[in-house]
Amino acid sequence: MRIVVFGGDGFCGWPTALRLSDIGHDVVIVDNLSRRNIDNELEVSSLTPIQPIGTRLATWKELKVKDIPFLNFNIAEHYHRLLTLLRDFEPDAVVHFAEQRAAPYSMKSSWHKRYTVNNNLNATNNLLAAIVESGVDAHVVHLGTMGVYGYGMIEGVPIPEGYLKVKVETQAGDLIDQEILYPANPGSIYHMTKTQDQLLFAYYNKNDKVRVTDLHQGIVWGTQTEQTKIHQNLINRFDYDGDYGTVLNRFLMQAAIGYPLTVHGTGGQTRAFIHLQDSVRCVELAITHPPQKGERVRIINQMTEAHRIADLAQLVSRLTGATIDYLDNPRNEAEINSLNVVNSTLVRMGLKPTTLESGLMEEVIGIARAFASRADLSKIPCRSKWIGDAGQPTS
Amino acid sequence: MRIVVFGGDGFCGWPTALRLSDIGHDVVIVDNLSRRNIDNELEVSSLTPIQPIGTRLATWKELKVKDIPFLNFNIAEHYHRLLTLLRDFEPDAVVHFAEQRAAPYSMKSSWHKRYTVNNNLNATNNLLAAIVESGVDAHVVHLGTMGVYGYGMIEGVPIPEGYLKVKVETQAGDLIDQEILYPANPGSIYHMTKTQDQLLFAYYNKNDKVRVTDLHQGIVWGTQTEQTKIHQNLINRFDYDGDYGTVLNRFLMQAAIGYPLTVHGTGGQTRAFIHLQDSVRCVELAITHPPQKGERVRIINQMTEAHRIADLAQLVSRLTGATIDYLDNPRNEAEINSLNVVNSTLVRMGLKPTTLESGLMEEVIGIARAFASRADLSKIPCRSKWIGDAGQPTS
Repeated sequence: MRIVVFGGDGFCGWPTALRLSDIGHDVVIVDNLSRRNIDNELEVSSLTPIQPIGTRLATWKELKVKDIPFLNFNIAEHYHRLLTLLRDFEPDAVVHFAEQRAAPYSMKSSWHKRYTVNNNLNATNNLLAAIVESGVDAHVVHLGTMGVYGYGMIEGVPIPEGYLKVKVETQAGDLIDQEILYPANPGSIYHMTKTQDQLLFAYYNKNDKVRVTDLHQGIVWGTQTEQTKIHQNLINRFDYDGDYGTVLNRFLMQAAIGYPLTVHGTGGQTRAFIHLQDSVRCVELAITHPPQKGERVRIINQMTEAHRIADLAQLVSRLTGATIDYLDNPRNEAEINSLNVVNSTLVRMGLKPTTLESGLMEEVIGIARAFASRADLSKIPCRSKWIGDAGQPTS
Repeated sequence: MRIVVFGGDGFCGWPTALRLSDIGHDVVIVDNLSRRNIDNELEVSSLTPIQPIGTRLATWKELKVKDIPFLNFNIAEHYHRLLTLLRDFEPDAVVHFAEQRAAPYSMKSSWHKRYTVNNNLNATNNLLAAIVESGVDAHVVHLGTMGVYGYGMIEGVPIPEGYLKVKVETQAGDLIDQEILYPANPGSIYHMTKTQDQLLFAYYNKNDKVRVTDLHQGIVWGTQTEQTKIHQNLINRFDYDGDYGTVLNRFLMQAAIGYPLTVHGTGGQTRAFIHLQDSVRCVELAITHPPQKGERVRIINQMTEAHRIADLAQLVSRLTGATIDYLDNPRNEAEINSLNVVNSTLVRMGLKPTTLESGLMEEVIGIARAFASRADLSKIPCRSKWIGDAGQPTS
């Protein structure tokens, strides 16, 4: 298949592009390198020594004799370049990772809120409008987030794969069954843009029959995949800072440098997780199982296990001997929640999950300890204020 | 009160600004004159001879000895000017009309889809981010649309004021009551942006306690209000073209020039209506009945009567003697729908509606016939294609 990976230089995009190329697809990467530029802004860098995209792709070509063309442009801004690409390349599928994807970053200041809304919504709308205008029947595989559901789920009702069955009472007193998009309850500006993306997908799917799979992903952990491990020049990024570092990455980093694990609030928040290798495999499964023309947006929950943050800290503490430090929670969220998520679609398609229990030691040894000397200790805690406008962080 | 009217040079914004000034509020108008520029693009103009904003405001000042300062800038682009205005003027309320508001215009081409999404969402997000950053506790009164509900309503269930009561079944088989934002079902890119606005309001309301009233307005008819009638320089705009002219305005125009009334499809589509004078009064009522701090977004249905398009054509035909012409429907929508809408909030606040039956002859005589000689006949039918990308219209 011909596949464009938008955002193909990023943490999920890069290993996805390599996997799709490796199994025989014709892959093109589009990326404006915004994630690398944000590293400059935040004065941080990947713990792992990631190489420039040119070096990455030259190495891949040398090893695999496979060319992955790379185009550096912003799909939220340069619509006509996007349209021309779709018309010329005629992709069967496009993978849409081209969004600002950190909740804390989206809350840093008014500028960051505005950047996230402007970038994410124009990127998605431009992509959909260009598919319609080009007439190319490309299947859109989008990385959504479990966060569209929020974490105030209805007690005793598992989160379904995107659509909720409800009953509505008529004036005559009868109960009518309806199936609706799961009510949005985003916890940050970033998550909110993903709930707005859902409305874009629903609209273009209804009006123009654009085929869409929206993958509501949990927190991704793990750094390497089968493909990124092949050569050091292909190594994937590992973020441990307060904005882009996921909770698990921060724990691993903190443990590796002998810093206490920082848990925000009670640690009673339950979150969904998936290993990067499984995430990449899920995108592949979504591409090879496209919706039919006219089928409504397919929504899949891309997570394999749920854990409380406090339990996660204890798991890392047990593996590494690190202590745990409880801090105030900057997020405007419930201190304790349960999480019960339906995730049968991907398992049915053939996903065999990697569990935290089995895979975490590899991260501790192969990544966190191996590259600990590259860490900037001052960048580890989360400093974004969730309420009001924080301005530029002063730390 | 101190009130900013964003989009205060437009069809609803102008009479709203005058009304609020007339009853004693301190009003500032912000507008980038985009609606007048779109007239240039579409090569159409208001049937009524509207005056430049400078002339309008000079006349108002002369007649009423009241100054309405006018600032020409785009709130979707010039965030810092917006922020400075909020900090300096410290408004008690802001009325947000600063959005592209025509469904057919939003569907003309990819460019128009992209303009509408970019303009409307950045305008709303910038306004909310600036309120949070400024720390000004301004009540946001936003013009939404009945179109957020779509016209495929649940049979036998009246459309509530924004929130729908549903029952959800737990794993144990119990039914739990939930109240959710009415499931979005927009019929155009324009309507979709208003459903996305709802998610912006819900988010900033939940996270930052911004006070918001969202008025889901029906189709506005009527041209003049008590204030715009005072002097010819204050006259309001009347659009009859295929993009911005509402169905009723087009009927009135067609009747005035002896052109058959064009009904798209069977005319079985039911729509909600409200007279402009009532619309302006509703905004005033919303401002004088603000939500409490911490109260969820208040959603009010701003409509006073519902009619089938075919019945409306017959009413105009009866009043004017015009014939009726049935054309294909360019919109991707059901041919027949019913509409049962709860609109008790505004009536409870004191609204006394003007009915179509009683007010329509004034429009026929005072506007359509009075200015018929200014009409460009070629601009009357709707030429936007709803599905696919139509490019620039060739007519």
